[in-house]
Amino acid sequence: MAVTLKDVAARAGVSRSAVSRTFTDGASVSDKMRRKVEKAARELGYSPNALASSLTTGRTRMIGLISNNFHNPIFLEVFDLFTRGLQDRGLRPLLVNLTDEVEPDNSVRMLRQYSVDGVIVASSTLPPAFSKAFREAGIPVVHSFGRHSAAPEVHVVGVDNVECGRLAARTLIARGYRRIAFLGGPEVATSTQDRLTGFLQEAGQHPQIEVSHSFAAAYSFDAGRAEMMRLLTAAPAEAYFCGDDVLSIGAMSAVRDAGLKVPEDIGILGLNDMEIAGWENIALTTIRQPIQQIIRASIELVVAMLDEPDRLPEARLFGCALVERRTLRPLV
Amino acid sequence: MAVTLKDVAARAGVSRSAVSRTFTDGASVSDKMRRKVEKAARELGYSPNALASSLTTGRTRMIGLISNNFHNPIFLEVFDLFTRGLQDRGLRPLLVNLTDEVEPDNSVRMLRQYSVDGVIVASSTLPPAFSKAFREAGIPVVHSFGRHSAAPEVHVVGVDNVECGRLAARTLIARGYRRIAFLGGPEVATSTQDRLTGFLQEAGQHPQIEVSHSFAAAYSFDAGRAEMMRLLTAAPAEAYFCGDDVLSIGAMSAVRDAGLKVPEDIGILGLNDMEIAGWENIALTTIRQPIQQIIRASIELVVAMLDEPDRLPEARLFGCALVERRTLRPLV
Repeated sequence: MAVTLKDVAARAGVSRSAVSRTFTDGASVSDKMRRKVEKAARELGYSPNALASSLTTGRTRMIGLISNNFHNPIFLEVFDLFTRGLQDRGLRPLLVNLTDEVEPDNSVRMLRQYSVDGVIVASSTLPPAFSKAFREAGIPVVHSFGRHSAAPEVHVVGVDNVECGRLAARTLIARGYRRIAFLGGPEVATSTQDRLTGFLQEAGQHPQIEVSHSFAAAYSFDAGRAEMMRLLTAAPAEAYFCGDDVLSIGAMSAVRDAGLKVPEDIGILGLNDMEIAGWENIALTTIRQPIQQIIRASIELVVAMLDEPDRLPEARLFGCALVERRTLRPLV
Repeated sequence: MAVTLKDVAARAGVSRSAVSRTFTDGASVSDKMRRKVEKAARELGYSPNALASSLTTGRTRMIGLISNNFHNPIFLEVFDLFTRGLQDRGLRPLLVNLTDEVEPDNSVRMLRQYSVDGVIVASSTLPPAFSKAFREAGIPVVHSFGRHSAAPEVHVVGVDNVECGRLAARTLIARGYRRIAFLGGPEVATSTQDRLTGFLQEAGQHPQIEVSHSFAAAYSFDAGRAEMMRLLTAAPAEAYFCGDDVLSIGAMSAVRDAGLKVPEDIGILGLNDMEIAGWENIALTTIRQPIQQIIRASIELVVAMLDEPDRLPEARLFGCALVERRTLRPLV
């Protein structure tokens, strides 16, 4: 037999309304009352039914996480942090897979069917039209790993990608590399565009430096490997800043298959600091993106929007830092 | 303004009940009627609201996927297949993170709050008490990557792990290795126990073969690396069958750091064939677990239980196959 709200009220010696208020977010209830009710609920093993409470509040307590690249290992950390963060708040983490989806309207229809209270778009490759379509459909949305703009249309949380690009160029130049290059992710990704901007800005301050760039077809091992194989057929640069860690690992495998050594012949610098970058047989020198802070801030923002849907869009940008391992030569 | 069922009925020139039936799974409606309604719905941008329909059906159309190891890259493929499979059926994929959870009762309470219609437990390390507790709480449950038993208490879908162990031993012996070993996952994992059983059974048929085994602390890179470092301090075997791919990659990194070569000095054989196993700079010879078939069958079973909660538990076991890459020496 399921324990009901009525049972808890009887056990705690309080009204049913007091029990209901204790389990309704934002409802008023004294600390003393809350303690009494929670004690009784614990003793009886009572858990408020989300479906029933949705009826009262009009909310489902479901937050969707939207991804369109389930094959990038960085998402292992994103999924772990996202689910823990929501669970800790009594919210329900729903995954939305938009791989191969090109039509914002379809996605809006799907999210409506899902009845999520809000969504976090965790992607820098999904066109901004998606986030906007969600917002226009009245779904609270936070864009993680998105691009900050002077007139933001949705909440954005991420790293300062232009600064990441600058830091990458400074790092390579400080190690005495003279011919440096950016091996970016897909050209349409705002993350790649911004990292390139910063990289070129910084390199432009150093007239002795030769700089070039190209793009991989996706943020994936195969795309990084294919692009580096192509680059190696001409005169390759001395060191590459790659669009992200998984691209970097693909690029490294191409370098080694060509009989060259990392970092002796070609230096590689990644971005993200995903767990695999630290594996001893990868040991990728990389620029750390603070995934934990980004996901935590994204959850905070989407939760804040539930109470205040008309909040003006806000950008939360985090800094980046170099993580030294073994794929660049030492400082000169 | 949201489009309602009434609007669709008016546009299609049919009754409201006909629209409702068109969007209710399993309800009777003629093909002609369905086409009319779907056309009108499309034109108006109507999407049935899951929350409203939950009220009618008592169902949330949410299926939970339970994992307790978000750091094993095999879960990238599991999450991708799980979300696509449910989305294609109009169901909603919820993620449940039970990392560090030791108390089945807490998990039952959480799932009750989540109001999922059913769950897939995707783990071979979560104690069977969890699946049983879910079943006893009346939550339809399918255990993926679980162990088949003669008297199953819940539905189980997975690979035949005993046969995987046999195939591993046969594979190593056929390559002329005389001292072979199993470097397992955690000793409590049924997957590791069953792979060990099959490995010892097969090796036992060959009196000239020296066989040994040990366990890593987790299915993780670090645990595989640490266990192999320990093994290398004594007289290591000539080839190791590792509990899974991520353990294998950890073990390989320890072998190489000790100045030894794979496969020249020590052979390594994995299990799973996760995407990373095929990366050119990993090139792990491994035993393929058919993840796609396992997840598809798990979804089919959990969906079938929604209509028939009292179905007798069923086991669906799939075979395994060797995927030859570059971490074992060739056949003798």
